[in-house]
Amino acid sequence: MVDAGPAFHPSPTALSGRDALATAFRPRSVAVAGVSVRPKSSFNGMRWFKLVRGYGIVERFYALNPRGGALRSGTPLYPSLRDVPDDQIDLVISVIPAHAVLDLLDQAAEKGVKVFHLVTAGFGETGLTERADLEAELQRRARAYGIRLLGPNCMGIHSPIGGVSWLEDADRTPGRIAMLSQSGANASEVVMRAESRGLRFSHVASYGNALDLNEADLIDYFADDPGTDIVLAYLEGIKEGRRFAPLARRLAARKPFAVLKGGGTEPGTRAVMGHTGSLAGAADVWAGVVRQTRLIDVATPDALLDLAVTAQRLAGVRGPRVALVGRGGGNAVLAADAVARAGLELPPLSDATRARLAEYLPPAGNSLRNPVDSDIAWDADGFLPALGIVGRDPGVDVVVLQANVDNLPTGGVATDAGFAEGLRDRLLEARDALSAPLAVVVRAPRTPGGVDLARRIHADMGRAGVATYDSVSAAAVALRGYLDWRAATGRSPAAR
Amino acid sequence: MVDAGPAFHPSPTALSGRDALATAFRPRSVAVAGVSVRPKSSFNGMRWFKLVRGYGIVERFYALNPRGGALRSGTPLYPSLRDVPDDQIDLVISVIPAHAVLDLLDQAAEKGVKVFHLVTAGFGETGLTERADLEAELQRRARAYGIRLLGPNCMGIHSPIGGVSWLEDADRTPGRIAMLSQSGANASEVVMRAESRGLRFSHVASYGNALDLNEADLIDYFADDPGTDIVLAYLEGIKEGRRFAPLARRLAARKPFAVLKGGGTEPGTRAVMGHTGSLAGAADVWAGVVRQTRLIDVATPDALLDLAVTAQRLAGVRGPRVALVGRGGGNAVLAADAVARAGLELPPLSDATRARLAEYLPPAGNSLRNPVDSDIAWDADGFLPALGIVGRDPGVDVVVLQANVDNLPTGGVATDAGFAEGLRDRLLEARDALSAPLAVVVRAPRTPGGVDLARRIHADMGRAGVATYDSVSAAAVALRGYLDWRAATGRSPAAR
Repeated sequence: MVDAGPAFHPSPTALSGRDALATAFRPRSVAVAGVSVRPKSSFNGMRWFKLVRGYGIVERFYALNPRGGALRSGTPLYPSLRDVPDDQIDLVISVIPAHAVLDLLDQAAEKGVKVFHLVTAGFGETGLTERADLEAELQRRARAYGIRLLGPNCMGIHSPIGGVSWLEDADRTPGRIAMLSQSGANASEVVMRAESRGLRFSHVASYGNALDLNEADLIDYFADDPGTDIVLAYLEGIKEGRRFAPLARRLAARKPFAVLKGGGTEPGTRAVMGHTGSLAGAADVWAGVVRQTRLIDVATPDALLDLAVTAQRLAGVRGPRVALVGRGGGNAVLAADAVARAGLELPPLSDATRARLAEYLPPAGNSLRNPVDSDIAWDADGFLPALGIVGRDPGVDVVVLQANVDNLPTGGVATDAGFAEGLRDRLLEARDALSAPLAVVVRAPRTPGGVDLARRIHADMGRAGVATYDSVSAAAVALRGYLDWRAATGRSPAAR
Repeated sequence: MVDAGPAFHPSPTALSGRDALATAFRPRSVAVAGVSVRPKSSFNGMRWFKLVRGYGIVERFYALNPRGGALRSGTPLYPSLRDVPDDQIDLVISVIPAHAVLDLLDQAAEKGVKVFHLVTAGFGETGLTERADLEAELQRRARAYGIRLLGPNCMGIHSPIGGVSWLEDADRTPGRIAMLSQSGANASEVVMRAESRGLRFSHVASYGNALDLNEADLIDYFADDPGTDIVLAYLEGIKEGRRFAPLARRLAARKPFAVLKGGGTEPGTRAVMGHTGSLAGAADVWAGVVRQTRLIDVATPDALLDLAVTAQRLAGVRGPRVALVGRGGGNAVLAADAVARAGLELPPLSDATRARLAEYLPPAGNSLRNPVDSDIAWDADGFLPALGIVGRDPGVDVVVLQANVDNLPTGGVATDAGFAEGLRDRLLEARDALSAPLAVVVRAPRTPGGVDLARRIHADMGRAGVATYDSVSAAAVALRGYLDWRAATGRSPAAR
């Protein structure tokens, strides 16, 4: 699991990993190298510079371009860090070609820069000898200078709290979820998809080749970060196996720590080599790490979000006994299979519950067992009472309601004016009326109206703190993972 | 696997299952019972009547309502079948309460009706003794009358060819895919989601409690139907195990036959009882049926569509050797894992291929292995040449291109005017330029612009006969299932 290359040992004058990350997440001064006025490119320093300026949290920020000049706004473009009239630069963001990086690092040393983040790619991950040598020299000099490195080959920091980001379209509201990711693109995807489910982040870090600061440093930092309640991760290789395991265990003992591990297959491992030059390690080794650390192992990027939704909004759930309520008998059958395959329970409802339900749901076209297959409409008088009866069954820990917009008898309904608002209000009433926690499953259909409806339900419910998922399977797998973590760490349900 | 109740033995005067289904799929005359002018309900005969009239294929159609009168259009509402001035009624569609069904059946007998379809629910599936007795009496009389039954408790027939449907929003263009489903809601979902991927149907049948006509009859019919190339199924119980297995094997030997089996778990089996009153049977029994019949066992409704897309558009694929091309290193790693986990191969590209690729893709930010992690944009000059080089690698059977709209550096791009058209045209050029078949994976994002783009790619590519999927995993699982079926039935790749 440990990489072939020697681990990086920063000089005594360098910041500790924790202090370096605290600086990178909340720098007072930032210099971005490679700010170009040329046509937009995703790897133009302009992107990082505009974001630092746009957030307006970082006190002092500077733009570098070897040709000098100035931006239309009048902001000067400094040819070199040496020209920047500031001798306390916390963070340098390098968005210049690899061949020019060593010179920039030399300049950074003269300025006493603390953290040097390389968006710049084209090092060890290329598999080319001369690029590997360049990476080794970068590491050697940074160590000699006492500068901590983030990257190379990474998007770096998205910190709504600190005002540093690579995500131009991200919501700027800070949240209490942190993420570390060896892949910037995967982190971007998770953050953007998280927003549509009402999730917000404290700090997100992509660390690419992990030449210096790596997953272990981030895990160590997030374990103690008072602004972070839940930690998500996308990992490929693990740089320092001996450091990682105990730190991951310490984090998982304090906060839900969900990890998506890439490279669990032979072709995946080859792909990891081509991506960040890491060693992904064998699947069985990873399984051992999971057992040892109690981290929550997930299978897809969306499963990271499902776990965060569950830990944030279903922390009060007592146990694994699910009551399913939805429309469509076949759909109910598949939902029941999904709950059972995830390792949750689907207890039959009590006779008393079924007798009470019968007042609202006629036997024809409905099943009063669990799953409750109900043709009753959202806006029917019986909807809330029926849901309340199910939620009050003593054998039920959580009510999973399928808002199956795929299954509306006619797709048109989803687009009717007021439908989305009515449905939202009805679901919120239901949440407040139930004694057991409510989870809402919204399968996204493909009709424009249905897609819009599904998006609005996710966003509105998210804002209201209701757990929503794309499928019963996703909800069940996330709840099982969360309950297992709670049991492994001896936690009780949170008070509601 | 066989239900407790005795199998139905139609009287000698009744049509054979094949003739009954031929009649139900293409009736010349239809009477709908339970056509009401009351406010819209999903179980109002008006829905079926309007559709028969709207398709305009059925020659003669009649509406029944016990109170008589007429529709605004002037169409008479006959109080009884006896009042209908037509003595050759092929199909009766019953959308009336269960208690009134026996009388309607008696009327149908007098009119020499061939097939009696009961949308009407409230029989054995309720678990109530008196309802089970009613179902038994319905079965007894239908047999005595020589009338074949479809249902009860089912949406019935969607046949764009025959002009009978329950799907108000379905496209009316016939296709060459058939579906049988014990659940009308699951069938509705599959048909509507299929449309957005460019798939169209010959005949779809939902058969509910399968009191008479059941999955075996439909499988037998579709095996010989010249208008059907691919058969999809959602099954819960299997009514006649002894008939089913050989007929399923015969169908699978002729056409790809993909089945989603509900009730594979204990809670799922209970849900099946509540839905259609069938016995779902144990998972190991089903596994035996799959091995024995060579049907393609799938796990989700969308997997049925993925299989249809694969069988229809990738029939020329030579084998399991996949080349992955996409953007984002982490994404490439997860895609490689997904391909390997599905049991496909991801061969390293030849040195010659990688040397040619290097002309278009600089090493920084790209991996020239397989997966090819390319930062090259759709509209860049190098895009098509690079894709062509990968597609010409002798070790590659299929090129899977990830149009990862989640991963666009800025979400805004997806909404730029002309972007979708440009992307579509570029993908079609790529398809035509490649020697290996092309599959396009479009992960649907949640931003409105991205969702719209994803939908347009699926629809446009579908119309052009290009295979599209929602994820690399979905594509890989479907291709593996299709290749296994082809091998088991001794088929070669179709000529391209």
